[in-house]
Formats: sequence, structure tokens, C-alpha cells
Amino acid sequence: MSNTPEVYVLGGYQTDFGRNWTKEAKHFVAMIRESVQGGLASTGIDASEIEVAHVGNFAAELYCKQGHLGAFFLEADPAFSGLPTSRHEAACASGSIAILAAGAEIEAGRYDLACVLGFEQMKTVNPAVGGDFLGTAAWYEHEAQGIEFPFPKLFGKLGDEYDKRYGLKDEHLAAISQVNYSNARLNPNAQTRTWYMNEHHACSTGDNNPIVGGRIKISDCSQVTDGAVSLMLASRKFAEGWAERRGVALESIPRIKGWGHHTAPVRFDDKVAESRNNKYVLPHVRQTVVDAFHRAGIADVNGVDAIETHDCFTTSEYMAIDHFGITEPGESWKAVEEGKIELGGANPINPSGGLIGAGHPVGATGVRQCLDAHKQITETAGDYQVAGAKNIATLNIGGSGTTSVSFVVGVG
Amino acid sequence: MSNTPEVYVLGGYQTDFGRNWTKEAKHFVAMIRESVQGGLASTGIDASEIEVAHVGNFAAELYCKQGHLGAFFLEADPAFSGLPTSRHEAACASGSIAILAAGAEIEAGRYDLACVLGFEQMKTVNPAVGGDFLGTAAWYEHEAQGIEFPFPKLFGKLGDEYDKRYGLKDEHLAAISQVNYSNARLNPNAQTRTWYMNEHHACSTGDNNPIVGGRIKISDCSQVTDGAVSLMLASRKFAEGWAERRGVALESIPRIKGWGHHTAPVRFDDKVAESRNNKYVLPHVRQTVVDAFHRAGIADVNGVDAIETHDCFTTSEYMAIDHFGITEPGESWKAVEEGKIELGGANPINPSGGLIGAGHPVGATGVRQCLDAHKQITETAGDYQVAGAKNIATLNIGGSGTTSVSFVVGVG
Repeated sequence: MSNTPEVYVLGGYQTDFGRNWTKEAKHFVAMIRESVQGGLASTGIDASEIEVAHVGNFAAELYCKQGHLGAFFLEADPAFSGLPTSRHEAACASGSIAILAAGAEIEAGRYDLACVLGFEQMKTVNPAVGGDFLGTAAWYEHEAQGIEFPFPKLFGKLGDEYDKRYGLKDEHLAAISQVNYSNARLNPNAQTRTWYMNEHHACSTGDNNPIVGGRIKISDCSQVTDGAVSLMLASRKFAEGWAERRGVALESIPRIKGWGHHTAPVRFDDKVAESRNNKYVLPHVRQTVVDAFHRAGIADVNGVDAIETHDCFTTSEYMAIDHFGITEPGESWKAVEEGKIELGGANPINPSGGLIGAGHPVGATGVRQCLDAHKQITETAGDYQVAGAKNIATLNIGGSGTTSVSFVVGVG
Repeated sequence: MSNTPEVYVLGGYQTDFGRNWTKEAKHFVAMIRESVQGGLASTGIDASEIEVAHVGNFAAELYCKQGHLGAFFLEADPAFSGLPTSRHEAACASGSIAILAAGAEIEAGRYDLACVLGFEQMKTVNPAVGGDFLGTAAWYEHEAQGIEFPFPKLFGKLGDEYDKRYGLKDEHLAAISQVNYSNARLNPNAQTRTWYMNEHHACSTGDNNPIVGGRIKISDCSQVTDGAVSLMLASRKFAEGWAERRGVALESIPRIKGWGHHTAPVRFDDKVAESRNNKYVLPHVRQTVVDAFHRAGIADVNGVDAIETHDCFTTSEYMAIDHFGITEPGESWKAVEEGKIELGGANPINPSGGLIGAGHPVGATGVRQCLDAHKQITETAGDYQVAGAKNIATLNIGGSGTTSVSFVVGVG
């Protein structure tokens, strides 16, 4: 495994994940434009400096009856005419796949400045239809067709598998939900920043917190979200010039220090069958994290100051805790009980609020995670700042643990 | 513009584009499996040697109600569990975008052997519904919604624009159609290899050759096609070892010598307005070709022995003729009349039969073009062989001239 050449993260822009762009009668082009123009403004980059654009999106074909999504990047600014563009998809990991593709082109020396844009407009349809569309991230025919809200059920099964192998108490899932909601209150772009949730409420079941599928209640779920996030990635050459004109030290600019990328069999039952004799329930997710740490030259999870992980449901964060190595396999509950994952804890997870708190516009999530990593490292995360953060790990997952991508973004 | 590091093309496999996989009651996984296993067999590569997979697909979300398409690569062989996968989309240029992404990762030193897989299963719906789905490659809301068969109309407008600027006779479009059908008869994988078509028929209009939209008749169109194509791409390091065990010289293995990639505004009318004072109707397409030649160190079109171009309609090939520089802008008809584009002519176009003759399973087309380039250079193209071919150019287009990708594949 070779060392990763340097890809610098200059910054970007996140739209307010609380907005409903359909209610505002706006096309997703408006969302793209705001996030790209916002990214240019916040980084002091001129549109004409962008050399290539990579778009992450899961399923605008279904939600918006529109494909060819890379090309819509051009609508953000007249200067973009002629720009090379492409769209990348791996269900809920689409944003990270776009980052990987952009990074590869920079590492290959093809371009010096790329804009990655993740977006999803999901509030175009009612929840039942949207739930059905999300089923195409699983093997639709086998795991979703005719099933109401297939994904909560699949991630409920992840919880069941933990329960079977190691035991799992729902109160620990509720605590994870509470931490995410609590952090989200500190994030001015979080979808749920004004929503009511505490541990007692998350532990309850009934009219105020109904079961969606299996052991998954409303409080265990990320919500349907509209949003777009831009991220400017640069070669060392561009970053040097940019640092000079911004009057900052090159060493202070976060870069992608390491990455991991693996795919498990599509069907959840195939995953579980494959991992039967493995101490990790989702070994390919574990390998993804290990690869990212290895490439970053980091020994283990204590080498990062915080994690932005994929908590599409509380069970996926429960899985992430032991797969990141915060605890031994099956002992994620210990980290929850000890408060390790809280803001201010030993291994803070999702200072932003994560998918449950900040929101989950599917194709944007991986990009949002890396932008939040950038905010932490540049001390611009405001009220959800992790003091002195130098290195942040991300984990972005598509399907029921199918595609996994992890980054270590950091300085030093 | 830096020189492209070396990406070798080891071979691959195309399914028979004449097949209807829905009638065979087969899931697209069967198509993926056949093309990947066929590619492994024809290159003598073991499944365990593949390090990464890149999938090109336009709109399985619509045609097959399935997303997360990279992950389905794993279904082709049990050895693929854990493999990094991703899916890339740029409408009808999706296949070439997948090749660009795979090539970037090899150039970056991330992997030594990638399998690119382009596929589309389109015969799942009736032609009217399929035509509507294809409309999502344009700006659906503005250019396709409520319009029957929007794409023939858009490429009819391309013909109209040529007519307005330079004059255009439909007999030259008919001749282009005839050449593609004629070449396809020599290609055992071509969809139309047994279909009836001659220049007289292509010139006629009426019950046997109805108008589909604008000046576009049935004979001007590529057809709805099912198909999958795999392509093995390797670093120099892997190619050296592979050459040794195959007993061939490294120098005899085709490589991607150059590439171009640009995007024009999505709406066709915006493209035409932008190019009003340009001698090329689609200047970003021209730039894409120029970039590929420049990176390959080739002066002009006479530096390649044949072209595999994007003839979704005869007008797009008519455009390609002058944009490749075979004639001055607006004079493509001269090359047609002089027989230059025929097999055996000075600048053979689409020896395979192209999209009109060989077929156009959207996401597979760019990969099929590069596989056909490989066949030509390795003298394995059978009856459609261009004698002594050393360098082949491709041009793959998404939307109405929106995303363009060109490759020069060659030896020496």
C-alpha cells in the first residue's frame, strides 16, 4: 500500500439542512448554486480557477426525474462552461466516492483544483415513496420491493445481529440518538437543531416515538433531508499559492492523510453469513477504517481527535464504535456508558450531530463529513468545536454496510 | 497539460448486443457476470487479481429500479468480496467516465489492476417509456417532459443548426447510416448484424422508415439495446508481469495514450447560443478531441488509423467528422462523398458499426468503444479489422453534446 500523495482541503459550504427546497419551489440547481458560490466565497477562489467538478448524488433520477448530474454543475456559474464534470454514485456513500474520484485525479496530476459537490433533494415525494426509492440502495428486488420502509428494517437486523452475538440494549441506542440530537443543537446548519429529543424520549415507544421497523424507532433514524455541500480539493502546488495569497501557512491547511474503500456483498443476509466467524459484524467496514488509519500513519482511533460517522440509524453508529476500535468488538455500549462519544469525551463522535442530528441528504453526506472535518481542524466549527482538533476520521456507508469509505483529514 | 502516465488496456469482453435480457428473464447481474467472467477468461486474469472495479451506467434506477450499481460487481465472482467499487454516470458517456476514473486511480498509484464494467438493460420498458427515461440525459423539465422521443428531436436540431450554418443534405446522413449498418454486418456482437438497410432505404421516408422527430428518421437512430462490456486496465507494473506470463511484448499491449474531457451547458439551445460565432457547432466537443490528440502526442486525425465515435444519431456522426478534423468545419459531407469514413477509407469511422449498427446500451458504449479499439490494435477484430491499426480514437457523448470524452488508444 503506497503512501497517498497530498490532496489539500481548502474549505467549502453547506446549505442549511433544515430547508425544504420543494416547499420553496426551487430546482436542485438552486441548491447547487448556493453551495458552490458559497464555497467559492468562503475560500476566496474565483470560479475560473476550478479545473474539474465531481458530483456525488444517489438518486436524482427517482427523486427529481433527472440524470446527467455532473453537467448541472455548470449551472452554478457562467465561468464553468467547458469544465470536465462527472457524477459518482454508491448510494449513501456517493459523496465520499466523489471525493475519492476527485482526489485520484489530483494525485494523478491531471488537475490542481477540483470542486466536489454532494447533493440530494429528497422532499419531492412523500415518505412512503421516498422510503421505496431508498430501497434501491439495497438489492431492491430481494430486500425492498413491497416492503414499507425497508432500510430501518435492514438496520434493525444489524442491531439484532449484535444482540445475537454480543447482547444489545436499546437504551444504548437511545443514548446514541440523544448525543447526536444534543450536538446538532450547536450546529446552525443542522436539520434538527430546534427539535425536541432527550434520552427519556428516545427510550420511549408509542405514539410519540413509534416503531418504524424491527427494533428501530423514529428516534433511531436520520430524517429525510434536502441539502448540498461543496468542498474544494487542491494539489500541493495550488495549495501553496492559495496559502500565500490567504496569508496562511501551508502546514495549517488540512489534507486528506488517508482513505479506505471496500465493498461488501449487497444483501444484508449475505454480509452476516460471510462474517459469521469474524469478531466484527461488518469486517469490510473494519478494513476500510484500518486502511484509512494505515495510510494516514495513525496507529489507532486515539490518533484522531473526533469522528464524523454514518449514523443513518443508531445501530450503524453502534457498529461504528467498535469497528473504529474505540472498544473491543461487541462492547460499543461501554463507550456509550462512559461518555466517550460525547462532545468533550475521549472519542467524540459526530460533533456536528451526524446524520441523525445534522441531517442526511444522501449524496451530500460524505462531503458534509469532510467539510465538518475541515471546520474542526481550522477551528471554525463554532459551538460544536472540538478543542485543538488536528485529525478527524470520517466513515460514510452506502446500503446496509455495503460500500464503505473512510477518510482521515488532518494537519501535521 | 502534463503527459498521461501509462494505463494499459489488457482486453475485455462484450456481450452480444442483439440479445434481449428481459425476454430471457434475466437480471442485469447475469449480464455483468457474463461480461466480467468473459473478460477474465479472455485476458487470462484471475478474479483475485482484480484490485478495484468501476461501473459505468446511466439510469438503472429508472430502467431496473436499482441503484448502488458498483456493488453489484461483487455478484460476478465470490472472489470480489471486499473489492472497492463505484459507479459513474454522465448519461450516454457514463462508460468513458468510468474509464477516466479507473485510469486516474491507476495513474495515482492506488491500484495496479482495475476492471471497468459498462452496462445498461433498457428493454425492460416499452419504447415510449424508454424514450422518456432517456430525456433525463437532457434537462428533463425544459427539454423532455411531455415530449415524445425528445432525443431524436434534439439531435434533429443539431442537423438543423448545420443546415443553417453550412447547409446539410439528408442524403449524407443516409450514407452515414448505411456505412454503420454495413460495418455492423461484419461484427458478430452487433445488434443489427442481420437487419436490412441500404442507402436507398435510409434515404426513403414513409411507412418503412418513418420520421421519429424533426429530420430524424428511424434509419438515423441507434436502437434500444441491452448489453455489458468489461475492460481490464493495468499499471505498467502489472502489464509487465502480465506480458511476461502471456509471452507477449509489453510494447504490443495497447495503452491509453491520451484523453479529453469537457462539458457544455446542458440545454441544447444554450450550446448553440454559446457557439454562435465559433466555426465549430459544438466547440467543447472539438476541444475534447484536440486534448486527446495533444496528450497522445498526435498532430491530427491522420495520426490515428480509425475512429469509434458516438453516432447515437447520424447527425452526431456528421458533427464528429468535422470536429475530429477530417474536414474543415461544415464540410463533413465531403468525407462522406469521398468514402473516407468507410472501412478501407482514409479515416474509417465505426468499423464496429458504431451505436447505429453495433447498438447503444447507454452505459456500456464508452467501454465498448475502447474494447473495439483494443481489438483493432491487437488484430483481433475479425471481419471488421482495419489492417495494421496502431492507434484508434474514440468519442463518447452524453446528452445533446453535453459531456464529451475522447481517448486515443494505441501502441508504439
